[in-house]
Amino acid sequence: MPTPLSIVVVEEDRDRAIAIVDALKDSGDYDVHVIGNVTGLARKIAAFLPDIVLIDIDNPTRDMLEELTLASGPLDRPVAMFVSGAAGGLARAAVEAGVSAYVVDGLQPERLKPVLDTAIARFQMMRQMRTELDETRRALEERKVIDRAKGLLMKAKGIDEDEAYAILRKAAMDQGRKVVDVAQALVTAAGLLR
Amino acid sequence: MPTPLSIVVVEEDRDRAIAIVDALKDSGDYDVHVIGNVTGLARKIAAFLPDIVLIDIDNPTRDMLEELTLASGPLDRPVAMFVSGAAGGLARAAVEAGVSAYVVDGLQPERLKPVLDTAIARFQMMRQMRTELDETRRALEERKVIDRAKGLLMKAKGIDEDEAYAILRKAAMDQGRKVVDVAQALVTAAGLLR
Repeated sequence: MPTPLSIVVVEEDRDRAIAIVDALKDSGDYDVHVIGNVTGLARKIAAFLPDIVLIDIDNPTRDMLEELTLASGPLDRPVAMFVSGAAGGLARAAVEAGVSAYVVDGLQPERLKPVLDTAIARFQMMRQMRTELDETRRALEERKVIDRAKGLLMKAKGIDEDEAYAILRKAAMDQGRKVVDVAQALVTAAGLLR
Repeated sequence: MPTPLSIVVVEEDRDRAIAIVDALKDSGDYDVHVIGNVTGLARKIAAFLPDIVLIDIDNPTRDMLEELTLASGPLDRPVAMFVSGAAGGLARAAVEAGVSAYVVDGLQPERLKPVLDTAIARFQMMRQMRTELDETRRALEERKVIDRAKGLLMKAKGIDEDEAYAILRKAAMDQGRKVVDVAQALVTAAGLLR
């Protein structure tokens, strides 16, 4: 049996909180926690380590919206935010802050599940893109450092590229380190000794 | 005066189409076109070059959903999809196909505007991430090609890295091409002559 999805509901209105919890219990196998006071929200959410955070808030200002979003950890888990009408103009701020679902005037119990499903799917897609971007950036940076180190070795020792790389690789193996770390050490040292 | 946002509404039900168009006209300055028959959808949408596509569909299968999404060009413009309840389980497929907003059982006229705003904001964020990923990938690929070309020159002419790069750069300037293109030509030629 799969572990039920764990949801933190951030809701200051007690009656609405009860209605949301009931709706969630009706629509799936969820493990639901309610946070009724947003003071120390980041710490409280981190204590639950939820699979998804559902935030319901009336008429947020842009600052409130950004604070709530950041506190809920939108890079670590999906965040679905339900706001009342006045906040319609804040869609851009919410999306840029990392909210996976931003729903204006639409917290209807029977629609909670599809919104959560969409938020989870979107979060996973965004995380995959972020991971791919991070890895490509790192590959590019590593290549630059290794190239610089090879260049230093080729010039200092009058050797060709392959020999320079072989020296880096041997040093890495001997020291149980990555080639890029050895290359970075060499580049740093060369900068200090210059 | 800013140009009104141009919207293509894909809606086979004539009464719903009229209701959607009326709701859009009430909620903002939009230039709205309705497509009532999805045959040749990609071509029809391309003819309007809309800023956003709104698709309303009852009980789509996964195949229908993917076909509609692809035809609407989700990498070129925001696509907001409204579906009826049975399609709740297709959230992942929709999001992965590139839909910017996927709304289940929620086509209410007064909520159209916030959904479109959110879809546009999300599309722009995704496009920015895609562009960044493409540029980083290209930078990495170019660096690999230039390195390979430098290595070939260094070996063939017994020169160092800086001299090899200078040769590539001079050839690129003389021919009015990019360094990476000259490098690629050299790598290709070396492969043919090997």
